[in-house]
Amino acid sequence: MQNLIRTSDFTNEEIISLFDDAKLFLDMKSRDILKGKVIVTLFFENSTRTRSAFEIAAKRLGAEVVSLDVGTSSSSKGETIFDTVANINAMCPDAIIIRHSECGLPGTLVEYVDCPIINAGDGTHAHPTQALLDLFTMMEHFDGKVEGKKVAIVGDVRTSRVAGSNRKLLPRFGLDVCFVAPDCFKHESNDHKQYDNLLEVIDEVDVVMSLRTQLERHNEIYFQSLNDYAKDYCITEEVMGDRDILLLHPGPVNRNVDISDEMLLDPRSKVLKQVKNGVAVRMAVLKKLILSQ
Amino acid sequence: MQNLIRTSDFTNEEIISLFDDAKLFLDMKSRDILKGKVIVTLFFENSTRTRSAFEIAAKRLGAEVVSLDVGTSSSSKGETIFDTVANINAMCPDAIIIRHSECGLPGTLVEYVDCPIINAGDGTHAHPTQALLDLFTMMEHFDGKVEGKKVAIVGDVRTSRVAGSNRKLLPRFGLDVCFVAPDCFKHESNDHKQYDNLLEVIDEVDVVMSLRTQLERHNEIYFQSLNDYAKDYCITEEVMGDRDILLLHPGPVNRNVDISDEMLLDPRSKVLKQVKNGVAVRMAVLKKLILSQ
Amino acid sequence: MQNLIRTSDFTNEEIISLFDDAKLFLDMKSRDILKGKVIVTLFFENSTRTRSAFEIAAKRLGAEVVSLDVGTSSSSKGETIFDTVANINAMCPDAIIIRHSECGLPGTLVEYVDCPIINAGDGTHAHPTQALLDLFTMMEHFDGKVEGKKVAIVGDVRTSRVAGSNRKLLPRFGLDVCFVAPDCFKHESNDHKQYDNLLEVIDEVDVVMSLRTQLERHNEIYFQSLNDYAKDYCITEEVMGDRDILLLHPGPVNRNVDISDEMLLDPRSKVLKQVKNGVAVRMAVLKKLILSQ
Repeated sequence: MQNLIRTSDFTNEEIISLFDDAKLFLDMKSRDILKGKVIVTLFFENSTRTRSAFEIAAKRLGAEVVSLDVGTSSSSKGETIFDTVANINAMCPDAIIIRHSECGLPGTLVEYVDCPIINAGDGTHAHPTQALLDLFTMMEHFDGKVEGKKVAIVGDVRTSRVAGSNRKLLPRFGLDVCFVAPDCFKHESNDHKQYDNLLEVIDEVDVVMSLRTQLERHNEIYFQSLNDYAKDYCITEEVMGDRDILLLHPGPVNRNVDISDEMLLDPRSKVLKQVKNGVAVRMAVLKKLILSQ
Repeated sequence: MQNLIRTSDFTNEEIISLFDDAKLFLDMKSRDILKGKVIVTLFFENSTRTRSAFEIAAKRLGAEVVSLDVGTSSSSKGETIFDTVANINAMCPDAIIIRHSECGLPGTLVEYVDCPIINAGDGTHAHPTQALLDLFTMMEHFDGKVEGKKVAIVGDVRTSRVAGSNRKLLPRFGLDVCFVAPDCFKHESNDHKQYDNLLEVIDEVDVVMSLRTQLERHNEIYFQSLNDYAKDYCITEEVMGDRDILLLHPGPVNRNVDISDEMLLDPRSKVLKQVKNGVAVRMAVLKKLILSQ
Repeated sequence: MQNLIRTSDFTNEEIISLFDDAKLFLDMKSRDILKGKVIVTLFFENSTRTRSAFEIAAKRLGAEVVSLDVGTSSSSKGETIFDTVANINAMCPDAIIIRHSECGLPGTLVEYVDCPIINAGDGTHAHPTQALLDLFTMMEHFDGKVEGKKVAIVGDVRTSRVAGSNRKLLPRFGLDVCFVAPDCFKHESNDHKQYDNLLEVIDEVDVVMSLRTQLERHNEIYFQSLNDYAKDYCITEEVMGDRDILLLHPGPVNRNVDISDEMLLDPRSKVLKQVKNGVAVRMAVLKKLILSQ
């Protein structure tokens, strides 16, 4: 039995095979592949977007979904998350999809559970299905030839779990990842080149991945406001010029902070294509983990 | 592709055909007509009643329903409703059912979306499935012969979206609509006769449609209390006498304000029949819009 | 048509037959037995655990579930529970599962409804599916030979609906029920022997059923804290010794208040087995009530 806690849980070969399935699922037709399976979603952090992408993915495959509203659950009766999960596990679901604000928590649950666990985001650690759909979107865009492509991840790379998963996954497929961020948002490691400003590197990059800026993740106030940040880091037509660059963002976009209104309408922006790809990739993940049990 | 934003989106012929389907669906048996379809409900205003009627209608047709809890959604992350809807649309649902407090909003979303949109109530503007089920209930009651029947809509006709949709739909089928309301609740237009008191017109009417009085929709306080309103506008046995009048209400009824306890038990009251008809009519609407794509 | 308001709604023969079904359902495979059926859950008290057990049970049988979030429902519009239930009933569901804080309320709803009602807990009165799954767990453990077994129910027997249902159900199958509780938690009736301390009776018992201690159910403060209660009533290794006793708890367990961490890991504790059995027993209940209509 496999889990998806981090992207390294899958080999490159497994990911290629996953993407073959995802390509088929892009027709968005409903299938009976997971008929009779029951999937539990357990979101300790709100995320309508990710939860509904998983729910639609599951239902398109014929599975049933039980969404536990954890805010109103037994955790309010003082139960630990380990007991909550052990109880859900005792009801014999076929998979559990979990989001939690604590780094590493989904991974520690693996030993308490008899079905696959899918990490839908844990604190600042990982968001493996997002990185997979990002890679899938690049694969589709570059017709499979991603080797040697250069990706600039722009924004709060320090606390972003999207950056955390992508910086590990993309290099495995030959992509070259660099970070663009103000000092306060720079990554603590030096595994990747870090730039102060996108203009320093924009002539070399093939993909710009803008991140959602979440000032609330920081204790100190680095900027007076998001607009201060936007002055230097918002992806605008002026910054992009007429360069042939793929523009991505995990959503939800802070308009005119992360990306300008104009660039969101620009055909180089594939933000909504990522959303669709996210359903197809999650269908492939659910199929793989549940059927290989 | 068709939407249902207002009742004028359907021709009279389409509505008659819709009602033929609804009659079949009154057996409340489950069908596979929409098997494999995924319907998203997006309620920015709470409405257990309308949302569950749509959800049961969808499930009786074999469709899957994804209910987005919009209170806890990305809108709390500062996302606009247009971005929220564009994102849902990117997940390729087969229909979106939306309720919003702003008049006209569902209509403006049509251009952002590739699937049918069903308006489940927008502010004081329209509530097309309610008007359709009201007409359907009259059709059933009068054995199809509604031409020339007189309908008195009683209550806050100024802000009621139920009145708003019915006053446009019913005359298309030959019904004669008048309003009964205190001055503060009277409709701003003079398209329909307006009376101060139901007794002025009750001897002529075939149908009384009582509305839910919602004082909170008004900035000014017109009445000391709902009871003050009830003195003149509550539908009681005394008002109805032994006249052969069909009594309707869109629910939830303010008991002894809109309609008295006794009249709710009277066989002339078809309030619960409306609820059942509402499921059947919504089944027919979902079938029509989704299958004709 | 049958309801399940209290365990006495089923004869002993019906319960034995129910358990035969539940045994089959322990394989946790999905079935089409209730395909096309729509079940409404109506929880006026939060209970992720019980609600998800019912929801998974329903979905494993192929039924659709509509969960009404009653906190945000029409009850906030001043509608009575009787009108809410009459409206849901008008939508023709195949069963309604209800939890409410008021003793006896699910029973009073029976006359307003055309489908089976399942009581998922009403105040301090009854929790019939919990008692059924408790009995089922004992039957499984003792290989059907429960006659003459002695069960000590430990804790707040006065306000526990789990104790309320078990004290009536278990004696019907020859089990001997006694209570162990501090004076403030003792049962008001003297139908069962009551002890101050488990050590007085532990050498005679075959089953210890620990209850969840809920100080909030009491107006007076009997204990300074749950820890005070735990000193005398927590089921520990020291209390259990090496006796061959089945240890049960309806969950969620207050760790080290109701049962110690060590005893929860002890093979004599079947708390998680109860959870699994709860899904199977609820599947059997849903099948029985819905198919026998």
